[in-house]
Amino acid sequence: MQQTYRLIIDCPDQVGIVAAVATFLAEHQANIIEASHHTDLQTGRFFMRHEIRADSLALDHSGFKQAFAELALKYQMRWQLTDSAQKQRMAILASHESHCLVDLLHRHHTGELHCDIPCIIANHEKIAAFAEWYKIPFIYVDFKALGKQQAFTVIQETLAAYNTDLVVLARFMQILPDEMCEQWAGRAINIHHSFLPSFVGAKPYQQAYERGVKLIGATCHYVTADLDEGPIIEQDVKRITHSDSAADMVRKGKDCEKTALANGVRFHLEDRVIVHGNKTIVFE
Amino acid sequence: MQQTYRLIIDCPDQVGIVAAVATFLAEHQANIIEASHHTDLQTGRFFMRHEIRADSLALDHSGFKQAFAELALKYQMRWQLTDSAQKQRMAILASHESHCLVDLLHRHHTGELHCDIPCIIANHEKIAAFAEWYKIPFIYVDFKALGKQQAFTVIQETLAAYNTDLVVLARFMQILPDEMCEQWAGRAINIHHSFLPSFVGAKPYQQAYERGVKLIGATCHYVTADLDEGPIIEQDVKRITHSDSAADMVRKGKDCEKTALANGVRFHLEDRVIVHGNKTIVFE
Amino acid sequence: MQQTYRLIIDCPDQVGIVAAVATFLAEHQANIIEASHHTDLQTGRFFMRHEIRADSLALDHSGFKQAFAELALKYQMRWQLTDSAQKQRMAILASHESHCLVDLLHRHHTGELHCDIPCIIANHEKIAAFAEWYKIPFIYVDFKALGKQQAFTVIQETLAAYNTDLVVLARFMQILPDEMCEQWAGRAINIHHSFLPSFVGAKPYQQAYERGVKLIGATCHYVTADLDEGPIIEQDVKRITHSDSAADMVRKGKDCEKTALANGVRFHLEDRVIVHGNKTIVFE
Amino acid sequence: MQQTYRLIIDCPDQVGIVAAVATFLAEHQANIIEASHHTDLQTGRFFMRHEIRADSLALDHSGFKQAFAELALKYQMRWQLTDSAQKQRMAILASHESHCLVDLLHRHHTGELHCDIPCIIANHEKIAAFAEWYKIPFIYVDFKALGKQQAFTVIQETLAAYNTDLVVLARFMQILPDEMCEQWAGRAINIHHSFLPSFVGAKPYQQAYERGVKLIGATCHYVTADLDEGPIIEQDVKRITHSDSAADMVRKGKDCEKTALANGVRFHLEDRVIVHGNKTIVFE
Repeated sequence: MQQTYRLIIDCPDQVGIVAAVATFLAEHQANIIEASHHTDLQTGRFFMRHEIRADSLALDHSGFKQAFAELALKYQMRWQLTDSAQKQRMAILASHESHCLVDLLHRHHTGELHCDIPCIIANHEKIAAFAEWYKIPFIYVDFKALGKQQAFTVIQETLAAYNTDLVVLARFMQILPDEMCEQWAGRAINIHHSFLPSFVGAKPYQQAYERGVKLIGATCHYVTADLDEGPIIEQDVKRITHSDSAADMVRKGKDCEKTALANGVRFHLEDRVIVHGNKTIVFE
Repeated sequence: MQQTYRLIIDCPDQVGIVAAVATFLAEHQANIIEASHHTDLQTGRFFMRHEIRADSLALDHSGFKQAFAELALKYQMRWQLTDSAQKQRMAILASHESHCLVDLLHRHHTGELHCDIPCIIANHEKIAAFAEWYKIPFIYVDFKALGKQQAFTVIQETLAAYNTDLVVLARFMQILPDEMCEQWAGRAINIHHSFLPSFVGAKPYQQAYERGVKLIGATCHYVTADLDEGPIIEQDVKRITHSDSAADMVRKGKDCEKTALANGVRFHLEDRVIVHGNKTIVFE
Repeated sequence: MQQTYRLIIDCPDQVGIVAAVATFLAEHQANIIEASHHTDLQTGRFFMRHEIRADSLALDHSGFKQAFAELALKYQMRWQLTDSAQKQRMAILASHESHCLVDLLHRHHTGELHCDIPCIIANHEKIAAFAEWYKIPFIYVDFKALGKQQAFTVIQETLAAYNTDLVVLARFMQILPDEMCEQWAGRAINIHHSFLPSFVGAKPYQQAYERGVKLIGATCHYVTADLDEGPIIEQDVKRITHSDSAADMVRKGKDCEKTALANGVRFHLEDRVIVHGNKTIVFE
Repeated sequence: MQQTYRLIIDCPDQVGIVAAVATFLAEHQANIIEASHHTDLQTGRFFMRHEIRADSLALDHSGFKQAFAELALKYQMRWQLTDSAQKQRMAILASHESHCLVDLLHRHHTGELHCDIPCIIANHEKIAAFAEWYKIPFIYVDFKALGKQQAFTVIQETLAAYNTDLVVLARFMQILPDEMCEQWAGRAINIHHSFLPSFVGAKPYQQAYERGVKLIGATCHYVTADLDEGPIIEQDVKRITHSDSAADMVRKGKDCEKTALANGVRFHLEDRVIVHGNKTIVFE
């Protein structure tokens, strides 16, 4: 996999931004593999993502950042330049349901998810064996013994100890404390097993069953203090009928959960997502 | 199109129902084109639909009903026997948006929707031309001049005058009065422009835009006094992205509305829908 | 609808193209509503589309073209600048099946398809009434009386007489002669009722039925002399089961045909499609 | 999971079959969980599947079979009665791609696929670790050393030694010899990475890329001696665009492969599939 830099920008829209950025990139001989931009006409905000072959540039990573800073200042950019060689460290929080966990682990194993997985943290011991097989440190946090507050303190300390960049809640059934949501804003991804905003909260499949919907779904979103209200990254749905039992709905829903979470996580790891208010720009 | 009888049954589940009904049908030499059944295990209720070639039976329609009544009584059936030669009379309520209206009219024109359309009632005059082209009586009801209550009185009288069996709200933007909902329970179909239960009420596309969902949808449901809470017959969705404007969402949504409404209406006209509490059994 | 210019470019890829184009646009104060680009890494070809508010430019349409010509030459661009105020003239060829025709006409009527429809040409008279209702000239071409060769001569003359820019075959069941395919290359759009390359040629639904596929589809593509082999613009599919009769498959397929054709035509009319060999770049 | 019997029938259609079967079941107090039937009107053949609670019957499995035989003879039925307590033994053939293999193994692990997996046979050693983790015997067959003919002899002997009922080719990249196809007719399931009949044979993603299709898919089918021509059980597709590289297509395709194969295998294991000529009846 060739090394790339990803330049992610958002700023107030105005004439000349693309020209300025493109000219800068051309002057440094950037070989652009992928480029996307978007203007939100309602808020007048501009968003841009470039993926650039690292070996095409005369500048190295810090040289690029230094050179670009002036331009960024001029256009009031919020920006970052990431380096594909610096893999993000993605910790996974899980519980007793293993389908999302195993799906992520196997996609990581085959190179589809380009990151490191420093640890798996769970409130059930039975999934330890998956972590072991993939040779990933497993930390069991006993919520009953510790109490919820202490348990989350342990989790926070563990995430810190492993230098975590991104936290993925792969059907982790505990609600994060508000201060943790704030600390990990934009860096904690959850999978909710309904097509939000339908069926917020507990037992969404049961809610869906009772409402008699004809579609079942899943939503991958950033975690915020408002439960299931964070910015949506990806959603997936499948058709159901009256003949689907609650168990059938769970089975079909799991397939939605896996694909929505895997796509959402991949978009994040590849720096394809920009959060804008409570919405996301996703440069697929 | 060959003439068929449709036998629709629901009753408490017990051993022997299928045998009893199938034996009855076999004794009368019924040539069964399509047969479906379903048991709701939670409520212990049984649902069944048969479509039978009329010319295969020794009995005529009323003879069949008479002969079947004893069996129905024994198993406490709620049942009906419809005759495909007796087309339902489907009135359409519409407003200024014509996409669902025209879609239904053309499907009717080509024989996909097997019904009569005795009249189109609207609170905007501009769609009159479509009614005229398809040679269907058009009744304009001036909500501003009449006031809402009087306007609905006119609508109710019009529906009665045209011997209406089924009312379809093809993006009719007025909320039906409670007593009208009750009177037409199970015989009034609405299309709501969101994947319910998300985005109940006014301006669902705007709500969807603001929530930042990645799927846009439409829901075809029976009208009840609880706005957008009636039994769902059919739903459809399409993917959207950050680059879809509100206008794009409306455009994509309209395609969902047309297909969800057309399918829902067809299922109803072919006696494929059984309402069970606030849910539906749909024998596609 | 605000007036826009659309600048469509394709050229050999090299460093600096985006910078050059963006700088040119910025220098002329272009307010860019939408911008997309793509590099085909295999062939080293670059593709770009800009949509620009006309009123933001100091230059008018011909002034822009003149000013841009130098840049275009430098980068060996194939390019065009279209003006949304100059509607394309889209002729429709149809036969006895009306679903695609009526769908296009209604989308045009409501402003979704931004074009003029100068005429409808058909080899069946029965669809004349639709043309009449929408007040579009209707030309009946009697293939039996004229013979195929003469019939197509009449069609070609009619298209010329109406200054046609784009020809849409809305389930027109005749195969165009090779010389006509060549003349209209990239400007004739067909809808084929299968998910190509499956089921090329006649009776694709029957072929699908016999092969026992579980998905039915439709393909919108540019017409070429190789039957059903032209560049694909859009495809759509729906699930089917063993219980779908041939008639059900036709019904479901028609819905695919309508949406695939309407999307494909809209993409073309909005200058979103660039043909590249036998493939298309579609800037949705 | 409660024990059930599944009664699968196909026979020439005639009046009275449903009545006869339903009466038989009612007389033996069968509690029917699920019942489906279908008549192929073109060939006049009737298909039926019942799932019955074992504990509701006075008869045991062999008693049921004995009692039913007379009825079966009268209606010239091809039939079987399976017992959910007798799990099928499903061997998996795999190669170096692990996504389908791991997906099946995890679904088996969580109980979604109700079968035994006696062995995994592969022509690459590197997937042995997955077999080991799930504690399933792994047999490596060295095609290069043995030659193709001898290799398949080893495979056949291995399948026999493990009393295999069903063989699943989870992206096994070798073509089965004709005599093996015949021997395992209706009991060997393959996943092909295209939406058949498009892109038969080698490198379907490359073929799809070159043809420029806008949908990518996968097909689960029974293996026959005609490569990729066997009866289709299940298909799945995803949208792609010009911006999807060959690698993106492979990634999206893999998700189709996993769901199509998992569904197809589940349908088979639950006796939901009846092969009829080169097509399938699938009672979902």
